[in-house]
Amino acid sequence: MSNNLLFILADPNEPQFPRLRRELADVSLVIGKSADVFANRAEEATVLFNWSGSLGLFKQVFAMCRNLRWVHSRSVGLERTLFPELVQSAVPLTNGVGVFSAALGEFALGAMLYFAKDFRRLIRNQQTELWEEFDVVRLAGQTVGIVGYGDIGNAVASRARAMGMRVLGLKRHASPDGGGDSLVERVYSPDQRREMIAQCDYVVVATPLTRETRGMMGEEEFAAMKRTAVVINIGRGPIIDETALIRALTGGRIKGAALDVFDTEPLPPGHSFYKMENVLLSPHCADHTADWLDNAMQFFIEQCRRFQKGEPLLHVVDKRLGY
Amino acid sequence: MSNNLLFILADPNEPQFPRLRRELADVSLVIGKSADVFANRAEEATVLFNWSGSLGLFKQVFAMCRNLRWVHSRSVGLERTLFPELVQSAVPLTNGVGVFSAALGEFALGAMLYFAKDFRRLIRNQQTELWEEFDVVRLAGQTVGIVGYGDIGNAVASRARAMGMRVLGLKRHASPDGGGDSLVERVYSPDQRREMIAQCDYVVVATPLTRETRGMMGEEEFAAMKRTAVVINIGRGPIIDETALIRALTGGRIKGAALDVFDTEPLPPGHSFYKMENVLLSPHCADHTADWLDNAMQFFIEQCRRFQKGEPLLHVVDKRLGY
Repeated sequence: MSNNLLFILADPNEPQFPRLRRELADVSLVIGKSADVFANRAEEATVLFNWSGSLGLFKQVFAMCRNLRWVHSRSVGLERTLFPELVQSAVPLTNGVGVFSAALGEFALGAMLYFAKDFRRLIRNQQTELWEEFDVVRLAGQTVGIVGYGDIGNAVASRARAMGMRVLGLKRHASPDGGGDSLVERVYSPDQRREMIAQCDYVVVATPLTRETRGMMGEEEFAAMKRTAVVINIGRGPIIDETALIRALTGGRIKGAALDVFDTEPLPPGHSFYKMENVLLSPHCADHTADWLDNAMQFFIEQCRRFQKGEPLLHVVDKRLGY
Repeated sequence: MSNNLLFILADPNEPQFPRLRRELADVSLVIGKSADVFANRAEEATVLFNWSGSLGLFKQVFAMCRNLRWVHSRSVGLERTLFPELVQSAVPLTNGVGVFSAALGEFALGAMLYFAKDFRRLIRNQQTELWEEFDVVRLAGQTVGIVGYGDIGNAVASRARAMGMRVLGLKRHASPDGGGDSLVERVYSPDQRREMIAQCDYVVVATPLTRETRGMMGEEEFAAMKRTAVVINIGRGPIIDETALIRALTGGRIKGAALDVFDTEPLPPGHSFYKMENVLLSPHCADHTADWLDNAMQFFIEQCRRFQKGEPLLHVVDKRLGY
């Protein structure tokens, strides 16, 4: 990579950069948070990495660089990253989805167990010093359906299978045999989603936000769910129609929801979700492990080595589809 | 089994008995909750099944029956079941441990995820309408040690491995290679327990209560644990020295405890565990799924078929060891 110049949109004092400099000692780097830092070497830059830059900066620097061969985004949700010039260009875009998959798979399993074992009731009873035995649900034998079966969905599926659960998947390009993935019993297409949802005890939303997925879980989908079922959102807030979800939860149409993402974040004070006993509310930190930034940098370093050796890059985004 | 007479200690009106009668139509049954029901056919009885009889009734009926060839206990914890005459007799005793393993494995994983994702904090913040992002722990790469690695421990191990965890085991007869079980990296003997415990992020107690295991987790064991570690008890209360545990929890010596079993059950009002934020308190119902009685009966029916065909029985108890 000795002939490459990397542009990185970030505060250069962030703690992950000494490691990057050490591990890629043969590479020239420019790191900064304003466009003028990059201006006079823009023609040389071959790689652009958006670590923590704003969309405005990203657009501005991208426009300056005429000789990019690769763009990487630390962020996985690209709904705010994909501007038309980037989509239309031939430069490949990658993201770090694999960095978050394990943590999100764990959150989804934790949420299922939270409802199955009714941890909220355990805590309430403990606080009132009430010893009250009750029946718990066993996940073994139950069904989970994963809306958006990609890298994160796979992390949910492998853990759910170990619990003895049946796993169904939904993806844009469905192949009924599960696409060679032995974890999933059947893969559904988006227009078959209600058929899948009707069978599920847990519906895990793990799809990216695109034109097609916005509002994909609405009134009719909640109506198709079992009354005892739980929806878990680890994708993006607007994939679920929030008004429809609130109606389903308050009306007892479904059992509960575990939500890590919302239409508006931070969730505004006074929002219904704060008041609902059947909502497990996580403030978009299900993937925030103490080492996630280190892992995101480690992933980029490994991608750089692949790029340097001419090996295929991982997690190349289909820019028109948006993920 | 047509030549067998089964004695069952139970209320004959319990809902599982019609199925038993239907599925073992060729077998003679006597079902009751007082000894006189069994008195005049005691010499004929070949099988004794304690479904829900008291220890007193169990002893009394066992003493009457001179020709038993098999005794089965619905209960898994045998510390109150094993009276000297039963231990000394040559009649094999089995229990239904497999019935509960999946539910207990799920509770243990649920408890790990509860602490790793800090569900208690999520609920507290939700109730006060506080949006507060925080770092969560990833189980992947962490270590769980299972004190008492048997059928339940195996159910914990398979689920923990799917989370990407390292699994250590402890059992009475340890073989360092894990005894051929690929789930466990290393098996420790009881006297090596502190060596194992020191490496663990989660210590799951799943051993039966015997003379050797009583108080096995005491002051020195908690001192050997990491300060960030959590202990989970799905075995029996007295395996843990409760006073030592309370001291470790209040002194911040360990991070937390998830407890389904206690020295005294129900846990008396005013007990410290009710007041502790770092305790997840489950009132001995982690294995109480709505269908557990059906499953316990189903297991007995299958055992009967094995007995009838002369096949080896499952879960034969070593009566001297007590499990």
